[in-house]
Amino acid sequence: MKIGLFGYGTIGRGVYTLIGQLDKSYNCEITKVFDLPIKKDLLGDKLVTVIDDIVNDDEIGTVVEVLGGHDVPYEVITKCLAKGKSVITANKEVVSQHLEEFISLAHANDCSFCFEASAGGGIPVIRTLIDNIKVNDVNDIYGILNGTTNYILTRMDEDGLSFDEALKLAQKNGFAEANPTADLEGLDIVRKINILSSIAFKGNISNEDIYHYGITGVNKQILESIKELGYALKFVASSKKVGNSAIIRVEPTMVRLNHPFASIKNEFNAVLFTGSTNGDLMFYGKGAGSIPTATAIVSDLVSILEGRSYIGYKNENALEVNKNAGNTYTYYIVGNDGKGKFRERVSDEELLAAKFYARVLD
Amino acid sequence: MKIGLFGYGTIGRGVYTLIGQLDKSYNCEITKVFDLPIKKDLLGDKLVTVIDDIVNDDEIGTVVEVLGGHDVPYEVITKCLAKGKSVITANKEVVSQHLEEFISLAHANDCSFCFEASAGGGIPVIRTLIDNIKVNDVNDIYGILNGTTNYILTRMDEDGLSFDEALKLAQKNGFAEANPTADLEGLDIVRKINILSSIAFKGNISNEDIYHYGITGVNKQILESIKELGYALKFVASSKKVGNSAIIRVEPTMVRLNHPFASIKNEFNAVLFTGSTNGDLMFYGKGAGSIPTATAIVSDLVSILEGRSYIGYKNENALEVNKNAGNTYTYYIVGNDGKGKFRERVSDEELLAAKFYARVLD
Repeated sequence: MKIGLFGYGTIGRGVYTLIGQLDKSYNCEITKVFDLPIKKDLLGDKLVTVIDDIVNDDEIGTVVEVLGGHDVPYEVITKCLAKGKSVITANKEVVSQHLEEFISLAHANDCSFCFEASAGGGIPVIRTLIDNIKVNDVNDIYGILNGTTNYILTRMDEDGLSFDEALKLAQKNGFAEANPTADLEGLDIVRKINILSSIAFKGNISNEDIYHYGITGVNKQILESIKELGYALKFVASSKKVGNSAIIRVEPTMVRLNHPFASIKNEFNAVLFTGSTNGDLMFYGKGAGSIPTATAIVSDLVSILEGRSYIGYKNENALEVNKNAGNTYTYYIVGNDGKGKFRERVSDEELLAAKFYARVLD
Repeated sequence: MKIGLFGYGTIGRGVYTLIGQLDKSYNCEITKVFDLPIKKDLLGDKLVTVIDDIVNDDEIGTVVEVLGGHDVPYEVITKCLAKGKSVITANKEVVSQHLEEFISLAHANDCSFCFEASAGGGIPVIRTLIDNIKVNDVNDIYGILNGTTNYILTRMDEDGLSFDEALKLAQKNGFAEANPTADLEGLDIVRKINILSSIAFKGNISNEDIYHYGITGVNKQILESIKELGYALKFVASSKKVGNSAIIRVEPTMVRLNHPFASIKNEFNAVLFTGSTNGDLMFYGKGAGSIPTATAIVSDLVSILEGRSYIGYKNENALEVNKNAGNTYTYYIVGNDGKGKFRERVSDEELLAAKFYARVLD
């Protein structure tokens, strides 16, 4: 099969390399790569700078989209699916907003839409969730879904760094972007927990309806108090389905030191979900980085080449997300005097008025 | 599709129930169940007591084998695959001995052989490994693969029970068999790590070549010393490929309290493997119990019904298992005086001469 690649940045190059290393029996090859003219030196005749050069190439059966951003990727994905080309993407921004549309387009045009790399990086959590919801109900998901912030919290905890020092170290080591706001405020996690929840609960969720509170308020003193209380601080997304509505929250969260999440360090991610028949399942692995993400993409490609991509998966219902249900958890609220108190049944207004707060998972 | 079920014990009943709950669009139904005549009251006309009544039923396209044991399951599986019926089994004893033969038979007769439930219970580790080895090399596997022994070690640690008290509690709660030898000595784990290693390393391994040492020698005093040293004691299988040979060992193992395995409690299992491109991946979930196992089986069934069972998977090489390579690890060796010492480069003879010993994973 001939493959078109959209984007030759860090992940794109990883995908290019890994596809080149696939077993020859798959007989697949990247024939065209869309990127800026400046990549001509690297790509030679394979470079195309017009989207439609790939969209209209009838020899290309599958495309990989790793451009990033919203508008161009959305155009690429919808055009390719409409032409019956299977699409693989790592783009959580686009997938979290248009998953239902992409799946419907794929069904209508008898091709596949695969997005394993859009949440959990190298962890095969999406195909596992899709498999699972066919045999039982999944009504609870917890995730450490952002490598940058988990790296920052780990370095603060283990090396006694300040927040700013840990952030700089993350940037130096390539885990944090130059503008880290989407990571630190939880927007990146919002998109990923949206994707996982949409699959598990079989419905559509708007990113705007997901509550999130960032970790920028954390400092060494707060982290030490939390440690003394016997907890580790993690940035955790939770998602719970109750009837036809969902409660989805992204918040700094205290977990006991013997909780499986306490051992998730540095750039690793973890996803824990609870099935009605098989109970708790947890997956842990590298949540970020070019090669783990590229591995997830190539794994999707192999499932397409072998004719066993996610058949029968479809979301058709809108879910009501209950933004004001935070008070079902216990919270640890730090006041302006730097002192923390455990509180129950707290409104979001009270939470947001604190100097810093963390949810407590026992 | 019409389904034949071999075995109507605890797991068989779970499978029967879950298949009945599958989405109607799958249009599948258990039409015949093989078991002893005594099950007539429960099964009515669906009961058959002769294997060939299912083998020769051309309407049955897939069979589920949950009989346990070796000889009858081996006959059932080979006969059904030869007839082109897809087979799903949870039988680690048979799978660990005949995996290559079953896969070859399935390929030759254009049907599927699925065995997700044979290792890791409800954790979808087998399909994840099979996916992974297509995109990168997996040369290291660690697993907590036996719910009974993990339950015993957890109850000893958390409740201060003696080994015998914890074993009795495990039996009372249905986690341990009346004759628990295969669990306590590690034979059950040998079969499971064999299956996982055969897949990851693409070769055939004999159970007899896998080193194992049981946990029956552990007592409260030893467990306390290990805890004071900052470790948790787990029963861990390890498997490492080096060139064309493998080092596979099943031993009591000390892990640091911040190691992901330290938080795996009670009947839960965990599998950690390292991919050459995507790094460490860990999976954690219920390793035992009728319903988690039945969930894995029905998940296999869904993959067959959707035409996306493990295509292209095949083991063709014999692997040499190096039984005498224990001294690559550090060991904690307890002498007859009850005192423990850390030692490196210890021969298996010395290990087996100790009162008790545990491998150390830092």
